[in-house]
Amino acid sequence: GDNPQVKRAKWVVPSSQMAKNTHNPIRQIVDNMKIEPNPEKKMIALSIGDPTVFGNLEPPREIEEAVIDCIHTRKYNGYAPSIGYETARAAIAKYYTSPEAPLEAKDVIFGSGCSGALDLCISVLANPGQNILVPRPGFSLYKTLAESIGVEIRHYNLLPERCWEIDLENLQSLVDENTAAVVVNNPSNPCGSVFTKEHIQDILRVAERLRLPIVADEIYADMVFSGHSFHFMASLTTEVPILSCGGLAKRYIVPGWRVGWVLIHDRHGAFEAEVRNGLLRLSQRILGPNTLIQAAIPRILEETPQSFYQDTMALVQRNAELFFNGVSKIPGLSPIMPCGAMYMMVGIDIDKFPEFSSDVEFTQRLVSEQSVFCLPASCFQYPNFFRVVLTLPAEMVSEACERIQEFCSQHYMVGSSANGAF
Amino acid sequence: GDNPQVKRAKWVVPSSQMAKNTHNPIRQIVDNMKIEPNPEKKMIALSIGDPTVFGNLEPPREIEEAVIDCIHTRKYNGYAPSIGYETARAAIAKYYTSPEAPLEAKDVIFGSGCSGALDLCISVLANPGQNILVPRPGFSLYKTLAESIGVEIRHYNLLPERCWEIDLENLQSLVDENTAAVVVNNPSNPCGSVFTKEHIQDILRVAERLRLPIVADEIYADMVFSGHSFHFMASLTTEVPILSCGGLAKRYIVPGWRVGWVLIHDRHGAFEAEVRNGLLRLSQRILGPNTLIQAAIPRILEETPQSFYQDTMALVQRNAELFFNGVSKIPGLSPIMPCGAMYMMVGIDIDKFPEFSSDVEFTQRLVSEQSVFCLPASCFQYPNFFRVVLTLPAEMVSEACERIQEFCSQHYMVGSSANGAF
Ligand SMILES: Cc1ncc(COP(=O)(O)O)c(C=O)c1O
Ligand SMILES: Cc1ncc(COP(=O)(O)O)c(C=O)c1O
Repeated sequence: GDNPQVKRAKWVVPSSQMAKNTHNPIRQIVDNMKIEPNPEKKMIALSIGDPTVFGNLEPPREIEEAVIDCIHTRKYNGYAPSIGYETARAAIAKYYTSPEAPLEAKDVIFGSGCSGALDLCISVLANPGQNILVPRPGFSLYKTLAESIGVEIRHYNLLPERCWEIDLENLQSLVDENTAAVVVNNPSNPCGSVFTKEHIQDILRVAERLRLPIVADEIYADMVFSGHSFHFMASLTTEVPILSCGGLAKRYIVPGWRVGWVLIHDRHGAFEAEVRNGLLRLSQRILGPNTLIQAAIPRILEETPQSFYQDTMALVQRNAELFFNGVSKIPGLSPIMPCGAMYMMVGIDIDKFPEFSSDVEFTQRLVSEQSVFCLPASCFQYPNFFRVVLTLPAEMVSEACERIQEFCSQHYMVGSSANGAF
Repeated sequence: GDNPQVKRAKWVVPSSQMAKNTHNPIRQIVDNMKIEPNPEKKMIALSIGDPTVFGNLEPPREIEEAVIDCIHTRKYNGYAPSIGYETARAAIAKYYTSPEAPLEAKDVIFGSGCSGALDLCISVLANPGQNILVPRPGFSLYKTLAESIGVEIRHYNLLPERCWEIDLENLQSLVDENTAAVVVNNPSNPCGSVFTKEHIQDILRVAERLRLPIVADEIYADMVFSGHSFHFMASLTTEVPILSCGGLAKRYIVPGWRVGWVLIHDRHGAFEAEVRNGLLRLSQRILGPNTLIQAAIPRILEETPQSFYQDTMALVQRNAELFFNGVSKIPGLSPIMPCGAMYMMVGIDIDKFPEFSSDVEFTQRLVSEQSVFCLPASCFQYPNFFRVVLTLPAEMVSEACERIQEFCSQHYMVGSSANGAF
């Protein structure tokens, strides 16, 4: 100020409601945990849904070469259309099209990761004050994205005793005239579940009757264990309009590359009047993902050997079995065998661990005593479970299981259940 | 439906208000123009603010190598923190810090391009119903981003006769209790203007008195012609809190790479209570830009030779002079010499071209007759001007000038001004 004598009120700039409404439940829980590993044991972090962190999984060499070649051509440094390069869109359409769910280049819109694709879908379908239905347990970004723009989320239940299928009764009970869409995540983070054809058909019947468009988070498409089949939701309906979100992150072990997409499935033109154009408009806000990666997409899809996908899922499945067998034997824990993706949920019989009031405390102490970090499933709105990531080297799985066993044996109390039944 | 006899009402899914409110004024105008070049003349597209389109400008070899090396290490395929890698943030802070405007890693937040950075800034500062002030003529993304989230934009005038300085009287007249921030773009798209130190100080005095935080769009930082100096706004104030947006796009000739950043300048903690944290929260919506490019940033900043920056701006300046000299001679056109960035604005004495009712018609006919495409400045809310891009090869500048001259000589009417004065 001009007069230094006058002490002015401190200048404080408020943040917007949008910023205040943007929550990341995982960060809120994890940042408040004391993550202090036991210095005598090497940390095993089973907490992060990033297949690159252990160093045992790497992207296919072919796709690195494809990106490097794109750099060398010097043709892909400029702006792409905000919805993506036509060639990349055509390549994705060709790869994912099927007679049951046909796709053309015009049905593909690129975003910044699958996160960006989900953001486009939620933003185009729901207004502030409306609601969308999301799974519990479920990936927390749906909440982050929706609440950020003033859209309410309502959690429908997944049923652990039915391989995490959707409780469709419960889902229907949440729908009202303000419900704009249902988000379905299959294969699932955090459950590792893979829906059967029949279950998907049941979901679609409900959506059709209630006229609810579906946002299908299919980022783990095709990532299933042998003996299981993945079905795109859109391949099982001609009636329900579906926005399917995908990306390179998980299947190609490159989450940092930030390339995802929306596939528009709309056999009867329900999205024609507004939604398709709305997606184009919204994509202009940040002008799409990195062009070098976009340009490499045709080769990424063509040249990645089948063995790469198979090897990845064989490793995940082996780890799932090892972990399941190891943890099944531990009193007080109930793992649920997954069928795909890269996660497993483990139930905690919390009454049997009277020292811990919650999955958060349980997992926090597991870090400080055994240096094993599992994500408390409260991060997925699902207390008394924890989630483990299955992309680690097999040796570490055995070691982790042993440490979890030791931990549980030290804290498990026979007969400590609330009703003292044991 | 179960009963095929019953013809149900067509299922139409509405799009959100957000999608409907997301407008790109450039696309709205350009998509409605007939862009049909004269088949006998090769197209010269001076319309796109992308320095890669002519092929004469390429990124420095050093930065391509840096990215390729990052791919080879296989260390940067995983998720980075949503605000960016610590090393990349530290490198940006080190590069842009100054005694007058100190920066540390914690003051740097990455976004998806400068567009993504601007989105973070506008979203964190303004609520629906509030307003932000933006320049006219000005880059249309401010409007796209703000209106998309229900924030009103108010245009303050730039004064062509004063090298496109801000009309500060006009700016102040627009401020009310709902004004959340002022966006200042320097160097300017579309004007190519570079503010003097004194003018920036004048702007800052107004902002300080009115307690308006500034979003400084400084994507063209340091891109100035010889004889001119660029000053970061933050380097000229200790009082006004500033979010400075930048990115690799223009200076390194890589707009497709989609890496930008926000620099938080906040000497007295005005952003401390809420805005800084709000930016972190908002960054979690899409988890930051491509990690390979982020990882290359320390080397991009260190290894790009000074000569690269100099050569780029020497070419732009030479083209500006050529174009200015060529067009100055053309009756009915008044170019305004830029001092930086990569654009020039040219006034059209529209009364002297009675066949054309607007800059849009003028530029459309210039395409169909001469295959020269200049962007009508209506795209920047500034009718009766057009903008040319200056990153083309010098030969094309002369050719473009000749064709524009021919076009004008064919359509210019002496004595056709409204009052018939000539
Ligand atoms: C179910 C689900 N959807 C979307 C994403 C986000 O993917 P991306 O990294 O491509 O943004 C994740 C990442 O963990 C996920 O688990
Ligand atoms: C003034 C201005 N700001 C921001 C941008 C967007 O930059 P980016 O490509 O990094 O999103 C541009 C691009 O033309 C621009 O001219």
